[in-house]
Amino acid sequence: MKKILIGSGIPKVCVEPFEGIVDMTMPPVVGERFPQDEVLRLIPEYDAFFCFGTPLTKEILDAGKNLKAVANFGVGYDNIDWKYATEKNIFVVNTPQSVLQPTAEFTVALIMAISRGILMYDRKLRREKKCSSERFFNRDLMVYGKTLGLLGFGRIGKAVAQKCQGLGMHVIYYDPYRLSEEKEKELGATYMPLKEVVSTADVLSLHMPYTSENHHLFNYDLMKTMKKTAYLINAARGPIVNEADLVKALKEERIRGAAIDVFDNEPNVSDELLELENVVVTPHVASCIFESRVGMAQEALKGLIGILEGNHPANVINPQLFKK
Amino acid sequence: MKKILIGSGIPKVCVEPFEGIVDMTMPPVVGERFPQDEVLRLIPEYDAFFCFGTPLTKEILDAGKNLKAVANFGVGYDNIDWKYATEKNIFVVNTPQSVLQPTAEFTVALIMAISRGILMYDRKLRREKKCSSERFFNRDLMVYGKTLGLLGFGRIGKAVAQKCQGLGMHVIYYDPYRLSEEKEKELGATYMPLKEVVSTADVLSLHMPYTSENHHLFNYDLMKTMKKTAYLINAARGPIVNEADLVKALKEERIRGAAIDVFDNEPNVSDELLELENVVVTPHVASCIFESRVGMAQEALKGLIGILEGNHPANVINPQLFKK
Repeated sequence: MKKILIGSGIPKVCVEPFEGIVDMTMPPVVGERFPQDEVLRLIPEYDAFFCFGTPLTKEILDAGKNLKAVANFGVGYDNIDWKYATEKNIFVVNTPQSVLQPTAEFTVALIMAISRGILMYDRKLRREKKCSSERFFNRDLMVYGKTLGLLGFGRIGKAVAQKCQGLGMHVIYYDPYRLSEEKEKELGATYMPLKEVVSTADVLSLHMPYTSENHHLFNYDLMKTMKKTAYLINAARGPIVNEADLVKALKEERIRGAAIDVFDNEPNVSDELLELENVVVTPHVASCIFESRVGMAQEALKGLIGILEGNHPANVINPQLFKK
Repeated sequence: MKKILIGSGIPKVCVEPFEGIVDMTMPPVVGERFPQDEVLRLIPEYDAFFCFGTPLTKEILDAGKNLKAVANFGVGYDNIDWKYATEKNIFVVNTPQSVLQPTAEFTVALIMAISRGILMYDRKLRREKKCSSERFFNRDLMVYGKTLGLLGFGRIGKAVAQKCQGLGMHVIYYDPYRLSEEKEKELGATYMPLKEVVSTADVLSLHMPYTSENHHLFNYDLMKTMKKTAYLINAARGPIVNEADLVKALKEERIRGAAIDVFDNEPNVSDELLELENVVVTPHVASCIFESRVGMAQEALKGLIGILEGNHPANVINPQLFKK
């Protein structure tokens, strides 16, 4: 039987469907992680590695003499050395299917929470202990009829677009890969150059992968071109946004608010950001729901098993290796 | 020119479209209210009264010798003595059109905030100052694929249904007035008796008017029949829910959480409710957005002017008077 090493303990329900098909080794306690040296000691015997929570380094890839595939827990794979894995003819799988709905939905939850002031109102009521009757001074944004700008229009961007259209928003997008006119029409999305999306959107949401090219793409200068009444949403990757610049833009009220699930220097979050009122901050949990986490673990394991059985699973990020 | 008395100061933008058409009197400062005795002194001269923020009592209706119409700021009119007004052949108008989208949208914002744990995560991150990596212990609800139960399926209930369907939810409803099968099919909503909606829903949202019959309809016994994993949402009227019972059900984890915009004894909110973690509480602000407040004020004034000009505006709650 082929052997898969799992970097962290995951609930039994995740591995049950695969028992008897592959031999899986993981730490006995859910959430417990194999230390790096333990992974290095074990890896030579294994055919695949589900690097849940363990950084996937060159050292591990070199030590894994029998490795045919590695799996990343999530859809973004900037956290693993996938280029080196590809060089070594090791397949890399991720979990796009099971991440899609929870992440898109969480993004919508962030949009609604910041634009309708839910957290601000909750804090106000808990502090004042009475409903006040200021009825005309509220400058929150009704999203109905407003414009959602999406930077990045892949699977998650498209799902966010569809959900927000159901809430009555218009959708504009920028992506380096522009869709066909026909597809744009079908999805009800209007393409604009990046700068125009940034300056037009009432709510601007990031859905691009993180690459060295878009490191700190969102800096103070770009934020200044947003509407002063607009909100910035980031549930993609932290370093796309310059966090210090975001704090500055928020403090100066260059933009009205932000809802941020990912940070420049995770797991750390800048103290200044955490002290602001006009932000919603969540600890990188957009896909963090029990049922979707189980789905992600199973999607990763299915991908690994697919590779080990000689199939071509859909969730491979370096499918060029199939041609070899 | 006909004369309209407005009970509170409202922004100029609300009254501008009607200047020159009617003579409007209001306190000079936005938010300032005419005291009750001032209203009583002024009212005999006026043809209509926009009782913004002033309770519409029998005394005022009796003093208003020339009153042909009164307007309520909002869609629910349990706060005014509309029955007595009807007896006196005084038309009552409200603001259903401009309340619809902001209120339905705020309800969706509450649903998303409580089910995806946005406030809980925001508090946790501000407290701990770091993203933690508990990936498998989260029992939040992904609304995608889940069931929304609506009690009350009027305009706002229907708008909430449509928005939540866009988020991937199934909709079941109870209303004393059941729709035709054809209409149910068109709206994708399934009718069930009240008790079944309560026991089936993953998210249960109230959209009924408040009447003496449904006072404290939602008591502990009914809450106990909800799923233990379900959330209760109330942005309709506070006294439909027994607030003390809600606190008990939440403390005992009979239900997973609640998001509440309206309270049993407004403007007061019970201290015990405000101390709970598994609630989102907002101070009766579902329609409280500047643009919609302006829309509401204009809708009210338009209705009053319509009556004064001898027309039949749509936003009259006692249209039986047209027949007299």
